[in-house]
Amino acid sequence: MTKVLIVYATDYGNTQKMAEVVASGATSVPGIEVEVKFAEDVTEDDVIASDAVIVGSPVHMGSPDWRVKKFIDQVCGPLWIKDSLIGKVGAVFATGGGYGNTGGGAELTMLALLNNFAELGMVMVPLPKITPGYPLGGLQWGPYGRSAGEHMEQTGVTEPRLEAAKHHGANVARVAAVLAGKELFAK
Amino acid sequence: MTKVLIVYATDYGNTQKMAEVVASGATSVPGIEVEVKFAEDVTEDDVIASDAVIVGSPVHMGSPDWRVKKFIDQVCGPLWIKDSLIGKVGAVFATGGGYGNTGGGAELTMLALLNNFAELGMVMVPLPKITPGYPLGGLQWGPYGRSAGEHMEQTGVTEPRLEAAKHHGANVARVAAVLAGKELFAK
Amino acid sequence: MTKVLIVYATDYGNTQKMAEVVASGATSVPGIEVEVKFAEDVTEDDVIASDAVIVGSPVHMGSPDWRVKKFIDQVCGPLWIKDSLIGKVGAVFATGGGYGNTGGGAELTMLALLNNFAELGMVMVPLPKITPGYPLGGLQWGPYGRSAGEHMEQTGVTEPRLEAAKHHGANVARVAAVLAGKELFAK
Amino acid sequence: MTKVLIVYATDYGNTQKMAEVVASGATSVPGIEVEVKFAEDVTEDDVIASDAVIVGSPVHMGSPDWRVKKFIDQVCGPLWIKDSLIGKVGAVFATGGGYGNTGGGAELTMLALLNNFAELGMVMVPLPKITPGYPLGGLQWGPYGRSAGEHMEQTGVTEPRLEAAKHHGANVARVAAVLAGKELFAK
Repeated sequence: MTKVLIVYATDYGNTQKMAEVVASGATSVPGIEVEVKFAEDVTEDDVIASDAVIVGSPVHMGSPDWRVKKFIDQVCGPLWIKDSLIGKVGAVFATGGGYGNTGGGAELTMLALLNNFAELGMVMVPLPKITPGYPLGGLQWGPYGRSAGEHMEQTGVTEPRLEAAKHHGANVARVAAVLAGKELFAK
Repeated sequence: MTKVLIVYATDYGNTQKMAEVVASGATSVPGIEVEVKFAEDVTEDDVIASDAVIVGSPVHMGSPDWRVKKFIDQVCGPLWIKDSLIGKVGAVFATGGGYGNTGGGAELTMLALLNNFAELGMVMVPLPKITPGYPLGGLQWGPYGRSAGEHMEQTGVTEPRLEAAKHHGANVARVAAVLAGKELFAK
Repeated sequence: MTKVLIVYATDYGNTQKMAEVVASGATSVPGIEVEVKFAEDVTEDDVIASDAVIVGSPVHMGSPDWRVKKFIDQVCGPLWIKDSLIGKVGAVFATGGGYGNTGGGAELTMLALLNNFAELGMVMVPLPKITPGYPLGGLQWGPYGRSAGEHMEQTGVTEPRLEAAKHHGANVARVAAVLAGKELFAK
Repeated sequence: MTKVLIVYATDYGNTQKMAEVVASGATSVPGIEVEVKFAEDVTEDDVIASDAVIVGSPVHMGSPDWRVKKFIDQVCGPLWIKDSLIGKVGAVFATGGGYGNTGGGAELTMLALLNNFAELGMVMVPLPKITPGYPLGGLQWGPYGRSAGEHMEQTGVTEPRLEAAKHHGANVARVAAVLAGKELFAK
């Protein structure tokens, strides 16, 4: 079995909904075991046991939710010291209001998390523009679930915007299945 | 007089149109002299003579147009060596298709240019969310002129999307007028 | 009086030491009132009362300490809604081990915080390369206090590396004194 | 055969030297064919024929050399339209003076290139901290060949700093060999 761990923080349930949809995509790939956990509940063992980690965060002031960063600092930080995650697969997703009609910090939120994965020595999977659903819910770094309109009116993450998230989960699972258990990095 | 230099590259005229609108905003501020130049035509003297530089670029693969970078490398690089731009004001804007409905690299395009300004020791002016037009054409780093729809159909940068650009030019001009000629940085 | 608020998180005292040195620089500027606070102790009123905010963080996995992000999310987030910080001055600094001899995430740590300031509509002050101490403790975004050697041996932030931090505090204070109380941004 | 294409720009030969060392690492992996090309000489066919692309750039004002960006815009841009690079492997390296003793823009230079690869839908390989040579020449995004000292005195990229570059080439080649030809991304 290849294990995919999905870690998220959520305020109004939008990022949790995204996490569940990403999970459904990963689960759709044969031979994949998926676990979805709230950021503050994830343990070092959860991460060590995973072949891929997909982290999702609401966009707060253009960067990840502090609870997601607490997970990175307190759970992943010690694993950086131990070199435990090198060669695993990392991927990201985010939700936000998109005020300004441009994502409002989504890029840097996802980038910040990919940067954490790079520090951890993880292979990073982006979201190709061919992904079904990309036009409404895609960004180069990963799926972006826009939960509000141009005037900050709350819409939630509507179905069409979730399609890319589902395929992202499946993409990451397939890459993880191919790379899992291989020793590809020099030491 | 406080001088504002607006530098741009353009493919289909969208970024040029944005540059002209940013310029109109800067010109609307009393005591401001504005010059708009295509990136490959800008000289070291143009930059040295300016109190503020506003650079605009199309989003290409999530980063600035190579002609804008050529301007940074060949014109601004030598000025970095000479410390010629320290304390001047820098600001940015961008245009792009916004496929994915999130800006498609607009954040990192503008960030890349602000990073160049930081290297040059320039004070950076963002785009506050109170700016008129922000909901349709704003991003924290600067105005973003979206020129296509969700399915990459070309729309050009429509009027409502240009409003934030005009105010951005005026904001930058006002900040430049206050800081111009002051020696505020230790050496 | 122009007020400068310095916010930091610290693990081993290195970032606190940097904060104190940045504060000493700001204090050296006539007419400047300086307050230094641990990230988790800062209130909305502290930020509202300030003309400039300088945030410092240890580099953790290439991004800011989660306690700094908690301050951004919980204290600054509500002020973003209220547009309370628009036109104030923002600046940053960081400390880290610099394993790899390149900063090990210092750039993206400082950038993440500047991005938060951009979202808040704050004018951003970088660290010019003419700053005394830059060669040993400077980065375009702000001073970087390297606290370990190439093999992660702890050295603390040595005196020569602190020089840029002191001048950064003074630079930011001078810019804040010039911009304080002016209404420069369109609404 | 798995093909690895190494693309670089160079001013004084430092980045070219890095490119050759990265190539030597890739070549050391059985079944790998390596090509090293100057950015302005690379064709669309060169990129299409490759399973992995490793791009190296001097750090100029904190971002990639304009000739590298010209390659991205003019050669890779059309391939983005055609979805030609989705699922291929991308990796980066950089050289710079490191004035400030922190990399002086190396992070954002490498990030800018990885962002281009993300737009292209490529799987990204970072540089794990276990890589031999990391302490002197490593950064989370890739190897960093520092070519000058704290006071900008030119040193060239010394041997110890090149070790991580060699292993990076081999790491990327191994990942590319595992992923080559597999259809892992939904469309």
